[in-house]
Amino acid sequence: MSTRIEFFWDVVSPYAYLASTQIDLLAEEFDAEVQWRPFLLGGVFKATGNSAPLNVKAKGKAMLTDLKRWATLYDVPMQFPKSFPSNSVSAMRAAIVADQAGLGQEFANALFTAHWERDQDIGQADVIAAAANKVGLDADKLAAEIQTAEIKQQLIDNTAEAVERGAFGTPTFFVGDDMFWGNDRLALLAEHLEQLS
Amino acid sequence: MSTRIEFFWDVVSPYAYLASTQIDLLAEEFDAEVQWRPFLLGGVFKATGNSAPLNVKAKGKAMLTDLKRWATLYDVPMQFPKSFPSNSVSAMRAAIVADQAGLGQEFANALFTAHWERDQDIGQADVIAAAANKVGLDADKLAAEIQTAEIKQQLIDNTAEAVERGAFGTPTFFVGDDMFWGNDRLALLAEHLEQLS
Repeated sequence: MSTRIEFFWDVVSPYAYLASTQIDLLAEEFDAEVQWRPFLLGGVFKATGNSAPLNVKAKGKAMLTDLKRWATLYDVPMQFPKSFPSNSVSAMRAAIVADQAGLGQEFANALFTAHWERDQDIGQADVIAAAANKVGLDADKLAAEIQTAEIKQQLIDNTAEAVERGAFGTPTFFVGDDMFWGNDRLALLAEHLEQLS
Repeated sequence: MSTRIEFFWDVVSPYAYLASTQIDLLAEEFDAEVQWRPFLLGGVFKATGNSAPLNVKAKGKAMLTDLKRWATLYDVPMQFPKSFPSNSVSAMRAAIVADQAGLGQEFANALFTAHWERDQDIGQADVIAAAANKVGLDADKLAAEIQTAEIKQQLIDNTAEAVERGAFGTPTFFVGDDMFWGNDRLALLAEHLEQLS
């Protein structure tokens, strides 16, 4: 039985995007499976008192350089969206629907690509609809489903579960009870998987 | 001419300790020189509005696990000091004196070892004196020098310079104008040195 890595992600986070480009490669290396779990970063911040790095001016400035360095290191395209920070609530509700349809990873990648490679505002309904079409989901049906109480509640539940288990940001990875926070902890996650194998 | 890496450090930071155990190895690999530059983390936080990760409860809890993982990865001893967070003002003033005497690196390592390996409170005068003795500085003379206006001002100047150049925490490394923040950015620093060489 292969090891399961849970990946709690919100498309609004640049570091979650960076991690999203690497996690499958890492999982493959260690014969692990990735479970892509949508949650809401805003909810996590509210519950934990944590806040975005951009809230400290010098940190925000350094972050832009830092992101470019990681993108270069990973050799992945990246541009900082003009719409940042977008409201990701609808997008992440849509990710819940996609997850339940067994298309969680595909939809996540479609959202990340739209936002962090093509500078599209994932707060906009048409951008979410395009991501749905890309992975073969009915966009009109999706738009209706994200308004249902059940989908709204599932996103709240995922967020509450992550916080309960110790999360305070994204990307957050769990291997059982062992939590790894940040794109910059993928090396430690790899080390952990190495020891399990 | 070898590349110069400036390392702004404050002994109070666990991540600065971790980085202090690796920076010489990294410098050696790329034929670079490390300039150990004492500054005051408290002053940096005050100037930038940044704050310690322990201020977010969930982040603080995760940090303790994170520190253990890095120490294991680096194969270095580490224990979280009971006195944390110590007041590092006197220790960092003493580091200025040691720096001016050409013993900056040796004294830094003596302080880091006392605090992060042996659980000694670097806020205490006798711990600072022991570090001074270890590197061959006259402890009594040092105790007098850290009370002088010149030494106090030099620590303030180092801190202000780092903030002016973009620093908001420690460990912070500069290669010319290129800043790298965090023990977890040593890999990016290495990448940068690789490209320079």
